[in-house]
This record gives sequence, C-alpha cells and structure tokens, in this order.
Amino acid sequence: MNEVIVPQRELNEECGIIGIKSKQKKALAYDIYFGLFALQHRGQESAGIAVSYEKRKIYYFKKMGLVSDVFEEETLNAFPDGDCAIGHVRYSTTGSSNVVNAQPVVFYGRFGRMAIAHNGNIINCDSLKSAMMKKGHVFQSSIDSEVIASLINLNSETCLLDGIIKTCSELEGAYSLVIMADDKLVAVRDRHGLKPLVIGKRGDDIVFASETCALDSLNAEFIRDIKPGEIVTVDENNNMTSTFMPNIERHSCIFEYVYLARSDSSIDGRSVYDMRYDCGKYLAELYKIEADVVAGVPDSAIVAARAYSEMTGIPLVDALSKNRYVGRTFIQPSQSLRENGVRVKLNAIKNNINGKRLVLIDDSIVRGTTSKKIIKLLRDSGAKEVHMLIASPIVKYPCFFGVDMDSRDKLIGGYRSEEEICEIIGADSLHYLPIEYLIKAAKGNRCEYCAACFDGNYPIEVDKYNCGKFVLEI
Amino acid sequence: MNEVIVPQRELNEECGIIGIKSKQKKALAYDIYFGLFALQHRGQESAGIAVSYEKRKIYYFKKMGLVSDVFEEETLNAFPDGDCAIGHVRYSTTGSSNVVNAQPVVFYGRFGRMAIAHNGNIINCDSLKSAMMKKGHVFQSSIDSEVIASLINLNSETCLLDGIIKTCSELEGAYSLVIMADDKLVAVRDRHGLKPLVIGKRGDDIVFASETCALDSLNAEFIRDIKPGEIVTVDENNNMTSTFMPNIERHSCIFEYVYLARSDSSIDGRSVYDMRYDCGKYLAELYKIEADVVAGVPDSAIVAARAYSEMTGIPLVDALSKNRYVGRTFIQPSQSLRENGVRVKLNAIKNNINGKRLVLIDDSIVRGTTSKKIIKLLRDSGAKEVHMLIASPIVKYPCFFGVDMDSRDKLIGGYRSEEEICEIIGADSLHYLPIEYLIKAAKGNRCEYCAACFDGNYPIEVDKYNCGKFVLEI
Amino acid sequence: MNEVIVPQRELNEECGIIGIKSKQKKALAYDIYFGLFALQHRGQESAGIAVSYEKRKIYYFKKMGLVSDVFEEETLNAFPDGDCAIGHVRYSTTGSSNVVNAQPVVFYGRFGRMAIAHNGNIINCDSLKSAMMKKGHVFQSSIDSEVIASLINLNSETCLLDGIIKTCSELEGAYSLVIMADDKLVAVRDRHGLKPLVIGKRGDDIVFASETCALDSLNAEFIRDIKPGEIVTVDENNNMTSTFMPNIERHSCIFEYVYLARSDSSIDGRSVYDMRYDCGKYLAELYKIEADVVAGVPDSAIVAARAYSEMTGIPLVDALSKNRYVGRTFIQPSQSLRENGVRVKLNAIKNNINGKRLVLIDDSIVRGTTSKKIIKLLRDSGAKEVHMLIASPIVKYPCFFGVDMDSRDKLIGGYRSEEEICEIIGADSLHYLPIEYLIKAAKGNRCEYCAACFDGNYPIEVDKYNCGKFVLEI
Amino acid sequence: MNEVIVPQRELNEECGIIGIKSKQKKALAYDIYFGLFALQHRGQESAGIAVSYEKRKIYYFKKMGLVSDVFEEETLNAFPDGDCAIGHVRYSTTGSSNVVNAQPVVFYGRFGRMAIAHNGNIINCDSLKSAMMKKGHVFQSSIDSEVIASLINLNSETCLLDGIIKTCSELEGAYSLVIMADDKLVAVRDRHGLKPLVIGKRGDDIVFASETCALDSLNAEFIRDIKPGEIVTVDENNNMTSTFMPNIERHSCIFEYVYLARSDSSIDGRSVYDMRYDCGKYLAELYKIEADVVAGVPDSAIVAARAYSEMTGIPLVDALSKNRYVGRTFIQPSQSLRENGVRVKLNAIKNNINGKRLVLIDDSIVRGTTSKKIIKLLRDSGAKEVHMLIASPIVKYPCFFGVDMDSRDKLIGGYRSEEEICEIIGADSLHYLPIEYLIKAAKGNRCEYCAACFDGNYPIEVDKYNCGKFVLEI
Repeated sequence: MNEVIVPQRELNEECGIIGIKSKQKKALAYDIYFGLFALQHRGQESAGIAVSYEKRKIYYFKKMGLVSDVFEEETLNAFPDGDCAIGHVRYSTTGSSNVVNAQPVVFYGRFGRMAIAHNGNIINCDSLKSAMMKKGHVFQSSIDSEVIASLINLNSETCLLDGIIKTCSELEGAYSLVIMADDKLVAVRDRHGLKPLVIGKRGDDIVFASETCALDSLNAEFIRDIKPGEIVTVDENNNMTSTFMPNIERHSCIFEYVYLARSDSSIDGRSVYDMRYDCGKYLAELYKIEADVVAGVPDSAIVAARAYSEMTGIPLVDALSKNRYVGRTFIQPSQSLRENGVRVKLNAIKNNINGKRLVLIDDSIVRGTTSKKIIKLLRDSGAKEVHMLIASPIVKYPCFFGVDMDSRDKLIGGYRSEEEICEIIGADSLHYLPIEYLIKAAKGNRCEYCAACFDGNYPIEVDKYNCGKFVLEI
Repeated sequence: MNEVIVPQRELNEECGIIGIKSKQKKALAYDIYFGLFALQHRGQESAGIAVSYEKRKIYYFKKMGLVSDVFEEETLNAFPDGDCAIGHVRYSTTGSSNVVNAQPVVFYGRFGRMAIAHNGNIINCDSLKSAMMKKGHVFQSSIDSEVIASLINLNSETCLLDGIIKTCSELEGAYSLVIMADDKLVAVRDRHGLKPLVIGKRGDDIVFASETCALDSLNAEFIRDIKPGEIVTVDENNNMTSTFMPNIERHSCIFEYVYLARSDSSIDGRSVYDMRYDCGKYLAELYKIEADVVAGVPDSAIVAARAYSEMTGIPLVDALSKNRYVGRTFIQPSQSLRENGVRVKLNAIKNNINGKRLVLIDDSIVRGTTSKKIIKLLRDSGAKEVHMLIASPIVKYPCFFGVDMDSRDKLIGGYRSEEEICEIIGADSLHYLPIEYLIKAAKGNRCEYCAACFDGNYPIEVDKYNCGKFVLEI
Repeated sequence: MNEVIVPQRELNEECGIIGIKSKQKKALAYDIYFGLFALQHRGQESAGIAVSYEKRKIYYFKKMGLVSDVFEEETLNAFPDGDCAIGHVRYSTTGSSNVVNAQPVVFYGRFGRMAIAHNGNIINCDSLKSAMMKKGHVFQSSIDSEVIASLINLNSETCLLDGIIKTCSELEGAYSLVIMADDKLVAVRDRHGLKPLVIGKRGDDIVFASETCALDSLNAEFIRDIKPGEIVTVDENNNMTSTFMPNIERHSCIFEYVYLARSDSSIDGRSVYDMRYDCGKYLAELYKIEADVVAGVPDSAIVAARAYSEMTGIPLVDALSKNRYVGRTFIQPSQSLRENGVRVKLNAIKNNINGKRLVLIDDSIVRGTTSKKIIKLLRDSGAKEVHMLIASPIVKYPCFFGVDMDSRDKLIGGYRSEEEICEIIGADSLHYLPIEYLIKAAKGNRCEYCAACFDGNYPIEVDKYNCGKFVLEI
Repeated sequence: MNEVIVPQRELNEECGIIGIKSKQKKALAYDIYFGLFALQHRGQESAGIAVSYEKRKIYYFKKMGLVSDVFEEETLNAFPDGDCAIGHVRYSTTGSSNVVNAQPVVFYGRFGRMAIAHNGNIINCDSLKSAMMKKGHVFQSSIDSEVIASLINLNSETCLLDGIIKTCSELEGAYSLVIMADDKLVAVRDRHGLKPLVIGKRGDDIVFASETCALDSLNAEFIRDIKPGEIVTVDENNNMTSTFMPNIERHSCIFEYVYLARSDSSIDGRSVYDMRYDCGKYLAELYKIEADVVAGVPDSAIVAARAYSEMTGIPLVDALSKNRYVGRTFIQPSQSLRENGVRVKLNAIKNNINGKRLVLIDDSIVRGTTSKKIIKLLRDSGAKEVHMLIASPIVKYPCFFGVDMDSRDKLIGGYRSEEEICEIIGADSLHYLPIEYLIKAAKGNRCEYCAACFDGNYPIEVDKYNCGKFVLEI
C-alpha cells in the first residue's frame, strides 16, 4: 500500500577545488584535507591531494571514495611538507569508477612537474583533444582536466602564464582551475565566471577554494571572489598578481545559490543563506495559501520555509526527519521489500502534520520522483492537504557546464506546465518562484547570471559544439 | 587566535534493539537491516543480526562498525529466509573493540539455540556472574547480555518463559530485551521501564523495537509501548501474550526525550518532537532575554529554539552549519594544526549573527567542552552577546543504567552552579530548564521518571552494588 | 584435449599449537607469531594468539586467514608484553568460517581468565556437551575446545591441575593441549599420544609446540617429546613438573610422518625426513621397475624419490614444477576454461620425461583425483610409461582423530584393490608400501602407532561414539 | 648467539608480459589471469590486464599486489569478452608504489585506443622523453612504457606498424613488448634479443609470453621463440607476419638461465632446467671436494646440486627446508627478537648435516648477506665443513637492462676475489663456475649472450647514456 521512500540526490555538481601557497614548508596535506571536507558536498566519488615539496617535485594521492575513506592517517602522514598544495573532490557522471579519471591531474612537461584541479565542463573539449591527437599527442583518461593540462603545456612556449592565458582563449565552457607549477600557484575563473572561486588568507598563506566554507574550515579570512576571466598568480614569495582574459561577460551559475553551494558560503558577495531566505520571502509574497503549517524539505529548503512562515504567520514545523546515517553504501531493498514499504532515508513526523493542511517548500524539482514519494508519505502520515512551493523556477533545460542534469525529456518540467507537474507529483497545488524573483534574491542583474536550466539562454552557443552526451533540444 | 571546533558526541546510548516474528519464512534479515538503520543513532560501534530459520537453527553475523559497513549486500544475501529475527546496534564504553562483545549473543543450551539482544545496564551483573562462576560456569565476554543469556538458560528448568520470569526477578537495573528461542520471540522491559520498547504490526508480522522510528522504517503500524515489567511472548502461530513481573514501579528515563531518542519517535505515548518543543516553550516562559536573534545547536536543539522564537517573537536564525560528512573515521588534526584553527564539523553562518545579541539553545551540557568552543566560534564570527539556554537541568550525577556519562567530577555541572558554568564556557548568561518543567514537557508525573542524572534520585539503591567503573558520589 | 590440473590439498590436519612461558614480561606475541609461521602447514583457515600480561588478564586476537593476513604489524604491536602466551592455527572441516570457532578459546571462570588451544578431535565430545547442557551450561561455538575448557573449569574444584587431570580422564580421542591459566602454562598429550607435542627451551623460557620446526624458528633447543598421557605444568617460576594419566597406551599417528608434519621436524625421536627417505628405500627393495627415470610429486614425496633413485640407480629427475604463488585465493576456472585446459598449479618439465618410462612416487593417495590428473599431464607431456609408487599403504578407513579424510566410500582405496585403483588413475602400474615397512621406517613397534586409516584398527572403540559426521563402516 | 635467517630475494626481474589474439570474442581476461600466474616469479609488485572488446575499446584493470590479490572473482567477471588481450606483472625498483606506474599502459591517440606491456629497460629513455617534452608533450608516470607508447603514436604517421618500426630504431636497450592496437596484436623483441619472448598456439588463438611456462598454463603449444629484432604482427584475421629491425646482433641475457626464468621454461630453444643441470655437472668436473654430502639452496639451485652429486657420487641431501608460507607481508622481527634468533624462512635439517662435511651449491651470489646467514645456520646445526660452489661466475657489474642489481660497490664480488668473498661469507672454500662453462651450459656461442654482469661487456655503449641511477664503473 505504502510507497518506498528512498530518495536519491538528484543533482550532482561536478567538483570542488582548493589550493594553498605558503612561504614555508609545512603539513599542507592536512590543510587540504580539512578544506576538502568542507567541500565534500560538491563531489563524493573521488578525492585527491597533490603537494609540491621540492623544486618541481610533486607527491600526490587520489582514490575513489569520500575524503574520509580516501585519506587515512598513514596516507596523510606519508605526504611530505610542502609550500604549495592543491586538492579536488569529484562527482563523476561517466559511471567509470577508474581512478585514472580522478584529480588532481599530475604531469611532467617542459616546465617540470605540474598539477591541475578543475571544476566545470569544457564544451569544446573534444575538438581541442582531436586537434592535439592529430599532432601526435596521446591521452590516458576521458576527463577535461587532462586536455587542459596538455594544452597549457603545449601553449607554454616561454613561460607558464603565457600558456595559461593562451589556453583560456581556446577553452569554451565553465572552468574554475587551480594550477600548481613552476613554484607558483595559479587560480583561474572562466570569462563567464560560471563556477565560483574565492581567495582567502591565513597569516601569510594564500588559499583558493570553490566556496568560502572551505576558507572557514581552515580559519582563513575571506579576501574576495576571483572575478570572471581573472587569472591570479601567487609567486614563490607569495606575491599575488592578476591578469584578465579578453571578452569577459559575467554569467554566474544561479543554481549554485539554489542548491549546489553550502548555505554557510557566500558567492560573489552574496550569502547563500540570505539568498535562500529571500526566495522563501518572495514565495510568501506571491502565494498565499490557506494552510495550517509550513515545512521545508531537509536540509536545503528549511531556510526558505522559515522565511515563508515568518512572512505569512503560518507556523513552521518539521514534517520530515532525515536519517543522518544513510550514505553511499546503502543497500537498496529488493522489489518485494519495496512493496512491503521501507522508509529508511526520510520519515514523517506525524504529530506535526496529522489532519493538517501543509505547505511544503523545496528548493527545486528535477526529475520529480522524490517529490512524488514525499507527498505520498506525508498523506499516508495524515496530512490533509499538501501544497508544494518551489523556491526556484521550473527546470526546463539541461546544463552543459558541469551540473549533472538529464536530457530535457527526463526533466519533469522539460515540456510540462505547473499544472501538469502538480498532477504527476500528486500535490494539491504547486507553484514555482518566477525567475525575476530568483535573480532579485541573488541581488544581481539578470544579465550577470546563467539561468539556462530555467530559461534556455545559454551564455555560450552550445549548439555549435557536440555537447557531450547531451543533444540540445531548444 | 581562533580555537579549534571539533565537537565530539558527548553522550552515548548503549544500544538499540529490534525483533520480528513472522508466520512465514521470508528475508527478515533485510527487515532487521532497515530497522537497525533507523536505530543507528543509538549505537555506532557494532551491529548484528540473527535469523532463526529451521527448528532451532540460527544464522547470525555481527561485526564492529556502522550498519552500512557491517552488512554488505552479499552478507545480507547469505542469510537464510526465516520466521524470526533480532538485531542490535551497540555503543561500547569499554574501549575493547573485540567482536566478542558485539550482540546479539547466540548460544546453545538445553532448549537448543537461543539469541538475545539487550539495551540497558544490569547493575548487579557482577554478583550474578560471580554466583554462576562459583557453580562452575564460564563466560567468554564482558557484556551483560552473556550473563542474562546464561542465567535464563540456567533458570529454565521446565520452559523458557519460566526461566525468563525467574531471571527478571534477579536482575537489577535497566534492560529492554528481545529474545529468540524455542520458536518464540519474547520482548522484555524491566520493572522500572527505564529503557523504551514498543510493539508494532505489519500485516501478520509482529515487530518489537527500541523506538517507533524503526517501526516507521518498516512501514509497521505502532500498536503500543511495552509496559514497565511486561514480558510479551509471540508464539509459533504469532499469538501474543503478556505476563508481568512483580514490584512494578515506572521510572522511564527522561534523558531519552532530552537527547537520546530520535525526534520522530514517540516514547510511552509522548512525541519526542513535541516534548522538545515544549521545553523550548517553557524556556521562553522562564527566561526573557534582550536579544536580536535566537538559534539552536544542530540537530537536536533546533526544535526548542523554534519554540522559543515563536513564544518570544525573537527571530529564529541558523547560527551554525553542520558538516554532514564528518563521521567516525575523521582524523583529528595534530596540535600545531589545532592552534592554526580548524573548523571542520561546525561552521558559523556569519551574516546571521554578526553584530547580533544571540540566544543559543542547546539540549544539555555534559562535559562542557563543546559549548565553550561553540561560544568562542560565534564570538569570533561577530556575535555581540551569546546567551545560552539549556532545555534541561544541570547534569549533576552519573548514569548507571546505560548512558555513558562520566564520573561526577568530570561533569561540568557535577559540583558547580549555573554562574560558575557560565563563566567556564564563556557565555554572557546561562540558564537551565528546571526539572519540574522538564517533567511537565514529558506530560508525566515526577515519580514516573528516572531523572537521576539531574537530581540524584536513583530508582534503585545503586550504592548497594559495585556500579561498574563508577563510584557513587552523592 | 588436455585435462585441467588444479590439485587441491587433499588432507587437512586440524591444528597447530604453541605456548611459551617466560620469567619476565616480553613481546611474546612476536615469538608466537613466528612459531605459528612454522606451523602454518598444519592449518590455514584461522590463526590466533593470546597473551597473559597481568595477574589473570589476557589479551587475545584471532581471525580467519593465514598467519600473515591475520597479524599485521599494528595488530602485533597492540599486544602487551607478557610472561605467558599461546597460539593456534586451525583448519576447519565444518565450512563455517565464523570466527567464533577460531582458537585460542579464552574464558573467565572461577579461577579467573584461562585460554586453551587444542589439536585433535574428541570423539565423545557430544555426550560430554549434552551432560553439561543438562546441568544448565551453555555453549557459544561448535568446537571441542570450548567443551574442554568448560569441563576443566567445572572439574577444577580446588585447583586447576586437578581439573585438568579429571577432565582428561573423561575425554576420549586425540588431543594435544596448551592451557594458560592461573599464572601457569600447562601442556597435555592424550593417553594414546595421538597428536605430537614437544618441549623446547630458549634461555629460561619454556616452549611447547606441535612440531620441532616451531622450536627451530624461535631458536629454542629441543628438549624432548611430551609423553603420551603426560601433563606438563610450568609454574610462575618456570619450574616444570610432570603428572601422568592412568591407562597410557601409546598409539602415535603414523600419518604425521607420511604427510602431515614438516620434513624438518622430528616426532617422538624420529626425524620425519629420515623416515620418508627410508620409505623410498623400502619401495626400492620391494619394487624393481624397468624405467628410465624416477621423480617425486612435489614437495612431500621428493625425499622418497631420491631414496628410490639412490637404491635402484635409476636417475632422479624433476618431472613436475609447482607454482609457488598459487594460494588460497586462487580463482577456479569456469567449466569452459577447464575444458580449454589450464595447468596453473603444476607443470610438467617435458625434457625430463619426453619418451621416458617414468617411476612417479607420491606419499599417499586419498581421493585419487589429483593422481589421475598428474598422470594425464605427464603422458600428454611425452612420458612413455608412468609407474606409480606410493610411500604408504592404501588409505582404506576414515580418521576420527583430527585428519579431515572423507567417509570410506569417498576414499579411492576404501573398497578397491591396487589393480582397480591403478586402472582408475591411469597408471601403467601401481604399488603401495606395505604397512610393516611403514612402521619399520618410523623405527617403532606396530603396537605403538595408530595406523587406523590403513588397517582399521582404531585405538579407541569408535563405534561406541557417534563420531561426528562420519559413520563407521568397518 | 645464533644469527637471524630472514633471506630476501636478492635480484628482481622487472616484468613478465603476455598477449593473446583470438578470432572470436571470449573470456580472455581469465586466460591472461592464468598466464600471469605462471609469470608471477618475474614481478610481484603490480599486475594488470587489458582487453580489447569493441572496435578500439579497451577495458583494463591494474593494481599494486600479487595476481591473486589484484584480481578477485568479481574483478575478472567485470571484464567484457574480447578478441585481444594483454597482461603484465611488474617488479618496481623505484619504491614508488603508485598505481600510475603499473602496466599495461592504455592511451588514446590518433589511431584510437592502444595498450602496451613492456619487459626490459630503455637506456636512452631520458633523452627520448626530453626530446618529446621539448615538442610540448607531457608524461604522467616515470616508466619507460609511457615513453614507448607516446613515441609509437607520434611516429605512426600512416599506420601503426610503421610507427613501431620507426620507434624501435630509436630505442636503445632491452625490451620485449606486446602491443594491442587497431585490431592487431604486435609482439616485439629488441635487436639484441636481451629479454625472452615466445610464440604459442592454442587452436586458432595466438599467444605471446615472456616464458614457455605461461604457454603451458594455457595449454598452448610452443611454436618458437621470437627472434632478436623481430616484430610479429597478428592481424584481425589472426594472420601472423614478421618484420625485422636492422642491425640485429643477438645478445640474450644469460642471467635468465642462471636465476630469473622458471626451470620448466625453455629460452631460445634451450631448457632452463637442463642448462642448470649442466652447470652442476661442470662444477663437478672442475671442483673435486672432500665432502660427505652435497646440498642445494632451495629452490633454484637444487638441480645443479643433483647434477654435482650424480657426477661425483657424493650423496645428495636436503640441508635446508624453506617455509612456503612466508610471503611479502611477512613482518620483520625487531632488533631484540633478531638477536634472540628467528629462523622463519629457512630451517636446517640437522640430521642430514650434523657432523658432515657439506658441499652447498647456490645459483649465484649478489650481495652476499644471505649466503653468510645460511652458512652460519648450517654450522650452528652441526655441519663440520661448508664448501660453497656457485653455478655461475662472480657478479662484478651492475645490469642496465632490467635486472635490479645494485651499483658495483654494493655487489660482494664487485671488487673482490673468490678468496675474499669466501672469507666474508664464512665458507671453508668457495668456487665459482667460469664463464666459458656457463656459456657452454647454455649451448650457445659467447657472442650470442649478454653476460655483462659477469664480464662487463655490455652489448650497448652504456657510458654514452645516463643509465638511470647507476654510474658505470668499469
């Protein structure tokens, strides 16, 4: 009778990156390790650390698994002290769990050893790779980072920075990079600023990271966001200089605020927590619902639900309890057990919803399967009505810049209206936040954001490129 | 400059137990597995499942680790279908990670194979053990469950139920038991009802579990709590009968509501979530504080903070963000890194507290080290004032009934006043919830609860027994 | 066309045991570890070490696997220094890989902690166990050692030694024991002396072990064999005293010489190597064969082949090469691959046998499947004739005293003559060594040996007992 | 008093390789697996298998560890059926246990996916690598195979075979290769034929392997050795064609016969077993020693000892017993235990040597530490005299072609005479086999062998190249 509730995380960010440059040699592997912990939500499939310890010598270790599984104490202790280090966590969309696809990518070229960590997706990667292969180069993995690394090396005729600048002019797509080479640490953000990247300081140490929460974990002070198209170089004496690419047009990913980033981070000067709060506030402005209680889907939509409650006066309750121990190794129940009904990951708190008309707020709906199961669970637990509010617009288009969303027809909103979606998921009513309110919550101008997953306006002409496995359907 | 914030879980419940009796043979190991997931918060050190599959044959597997680590798919598939099964998760206080101390305990006696799972602490265990040893019995572990099992066997001269009844009359202390023997499943709750134990139904199947959240995870319907001193027997035809011990005096553990149980469970008819909400409400009645915002320490004190906010009108914010990926294998930073400052498990959400006067609510303070670190973190992140409210009284006395609290002098409140504790943890003010309000929130009479950790009124004369490693200090 | 050659080890000795008593505390776990290495051939399924370190405190660790897998460096380093230690390697015939069946068995009784390690098989174990169960005792495993341990404890009314003596008078079957209890180390050999057990000395330390090769591995000097029915006690001051059981009748297992023991050991004063050499010599006396070369099946029959060659003048060659890296984790090829032919464990050295008439010597034939495959391999590799000589008589009867031989009808010689066996394995001729020559090679009197697997004369009336899974068929 | 005997394997061959080409798709991963088992003695540090399964698609798996550890059943079953496969076992001399240095090396270039497995050492690798790096190529490992692979790709302008031929003309040093690319399987042996490589057939399948024992393990028929400088190509229809490099001068490694190869293999038409036998025979011709018994150091020198015994009439005995269970994970005893004396890997068989004058034969002496320990052990076990005979000449020079011998001053014979070495190892006398006898045993002409480790006549002008870590000292 009852349905199974075993929700999967529906969206996957490709990566989290971090880099540290110090004046003296120290146990930087530990710093990177703690930083990667703070970025774990950006990728759970593999983790890696590379430390530069002698003139052009790099020690690195990477493996499939969570940061805590990959790095045991003896693994960390085996790292030499160093003055420069980078780290990476990755979520892979390829299904290939081969460690050859893990990062950082470490290679040896004409300027000695280099290491690179990448967050994003290069959409002209195949053509760049083909061109290099025609010249006789070989590749050992299927990841963009290896192409970027090889290209930087090939383009670095006199010095590395020239190579990076020239390479950036060839790359199309989303990329935030940290590159360790030639006694320097370089951080790069693509000309659209699609993926976040920030600068922090801890004493004399300079830290680059995908999100500010990684700076906090190291007790580093947040200095500023790296600007779209900016290349920041920290030299051997920890002097920091900036160069800019041509043709800069900011289009930061709005979905970082909606779902991807941690709520205690801030991106491009805007607190993720505050932005999510404002989304809830705008939902309250737009949608007055006759209801007894309001609740958020844990964890990311709780903030918006609180805002909604505060604005409307409808009491906030916890409707769902999340099991903190259900991780990646969780065994799926077989069909017979599913029918028997198993609610392992989420449970309803019956007393709070029994006989109540409920407003349920979620951050977004991608495939819709989880929403459907949650609504059924809440009804089975006594909710009289379930009105769903989504703190972002309908996801209608796939992302080509590093978020693992399916093709348009797999998206529940790909070709459907609010009403049609409402019927499928079984809600009493369903409303989405219009895009102008989302942008307003992010405190920016519409033109500064990439909201292509909502409106199809890709900042890059994606139909010019063979975009991976995705075929564009606009 | 900044301090390290790596809070440890300060209190540890000894165990969670579950048992299922079915009319037909089926894959009960999977049911127990999902049930143990729901009880994982009650013990993370070892997990075990035992399934009875043929007349008196038991297949079992137990190992150190989380449920998800102990039971991989092939381990679960190796279990035969059965009509009776029990499971156990354990937190050990002994430091001995020997699997010999894991449960269920399976043994072979005059009535064939039996298995037992135990939650609680038998305070006269040593004397019972000595008496049996004098008669020539041997023991292979240091856990109570082995003694209980041996004693039941020894006492079962004609039938098992007699043995159980006789044994219960000898045991002093806290115990909830599920026992699988002789084609029957038996559930026992000690005469004080110290530890919770509930009955559920799923079709014809009967389920016993420590908390109702485990019933929910199996889609089983909650029937009722097992009463203090009740022995419930489910026979081969799934008929359920009850027997009662003499001298029943209910003294349910109040700390289950405060901290141990999951908020989506209900104990002895009272919702844990609602009880915690009421504690927050009473704090608001008692303590009016000039503050800008109120926040709860995640996860267990968020509910009380919401109640406080709703009653006082002081806005609720998230002050702290918890890293969901920091688990048991987390490597502690070395001293030099600590001093450098690492905030891995908790981070402050600065925007919400910067320049603000903050009311911070926690469920309890045991050793006080975490509170001190959290307050420092909040101040470093800009909080102008930090007023701490605790949703329970001062913890002054150790527990002898299954909660791992230190000896009285290790408890920050063991011999100190509110004012003294406030100074140590560095708060601007500190207030605890008086015990009468706590009892009121639990909707019971004072005499029905064991609140000995707060008031020293142990329901059993603990000084008559050599209570483990603890020396009573009242 | 060619057959698969993946020989399994056909016979399995149950266990190897070792014990050390020192005057001072030291890292005895390491000594036991090295000793167990030397005894690894006696059991590859589990390994365990127990160290007594404080008055009646025992630290132990046991696990499924080879000695080198069970004991990693940190596991060994975790052992405290101690003045007494025992160890055990086990081959299990039960198929149950549950660690609960591993040894040493450690238990707590009226004389404090004790630990016991056992080699052999108690044939009246079931009735002893039943009797104890009737008195209300429970058991947690299916191994003899737990029964012996419980019985010793039960029988020890005034002191441990009395308990051991009384227990030995009740045990029927084969047992060599090392027992650590009450500041003493005790070694016991059953009244038939079925299983070997020796005494060694290293400085002041006293060492007991199943074979002399374990003494050598510790650089301990061989003192003497423990006599049948002897109980040797080493007290807290390392004084050694002997007691004897009544009704001693020596019947040492002749199969230890044939196959089980390592060739560099000596048993009851007779070198295993020399005994095997003599068996080859007697084969030469008895069987003159027209052949070009003689070879032994590696490793245990090489010695006999050399003797045969030296006596007959027929040149000795290596006919078979053994892959040293094929261990327990070796994956069996699927049927299609088998048919394709895989010779992974053994290979023929063609040059040595091509076109030759070969005498092939093996120590024994149990099930006969390996012999058949080897002969086929040799013929396929060019051998013109293969004449097989076996350095022991036909195995006709199962062993009830600790060697894992199948029931009589699974033994190729169970009901067959030399000629019939010869035809099945495909040899040109086949001859066994008569039992009187085997006894002569062991330099003893017929009545001093148990050769029941060859002649059916069990030293104990086995049909009085329900001998495990075996039904006696004489 | 007694010394520790924990001999290490003193010499390490770099690699073993194998390749199979079939007409139909089948479970070739299993074939490679069994073949690698047979080649395990050539490398124990990592193992890898690559299978080509669709037009240019390659599935591969490689890891640190023995073949049996790297490939569990599910790992093997994950391989798709394919029509071409290669495998590799490796011993690394670099100390870097990074899997990036394991083989086969799989890469993607202008002709699609390729895979390569290499045995040997390219002495001009650094200069080839530098030249490629100057052109902008990058490398991700420190192994020769990556350079060979990249170079073949770069040189393959029109077709792969041209690229291979051109690359071979640039490579200096020792290399046997199997290359899987473009629906073809190619086997290459360098122009000196330094490393062995053979061709076998199993039905229509064609097999290449380092040694004939790998053919035997697959039941493949030995066809012939690949000739020095030969490039054998098997096309999509399993047609086999040969091409030859210019400047062919055979210099096969004589040390393959002495120590590296398995005795059941034959190399360049000569049985390794027979060659070792003849070495023993020549020792007998040259050195008449007054002795009671002769023995060989197990396993490789037993053959020579037998020959010596047969020629001289001095009886052959086993003086040493080797523990078959001491593997790579063996824990070294600490200093205090060493002094106490531990003989874990080797034990003396006292009865055979006590009071005897012993001739002990070994295949070679490299560093000399093991010989010294063995002689001490034999004396401690009663040997009256120990005369050592070595079945090869004094090792005086390091190898640059793939055998891990130390620099000249680490070799006990680097700058010492027979007499000096004899004194160091503590033998009563010591004699080596002169090189002309060694060559005679291999049944070849002196000019056809590389015996540089004995005579310093390197077939390639090694002082022209910066030979890795070795400095040439002639």
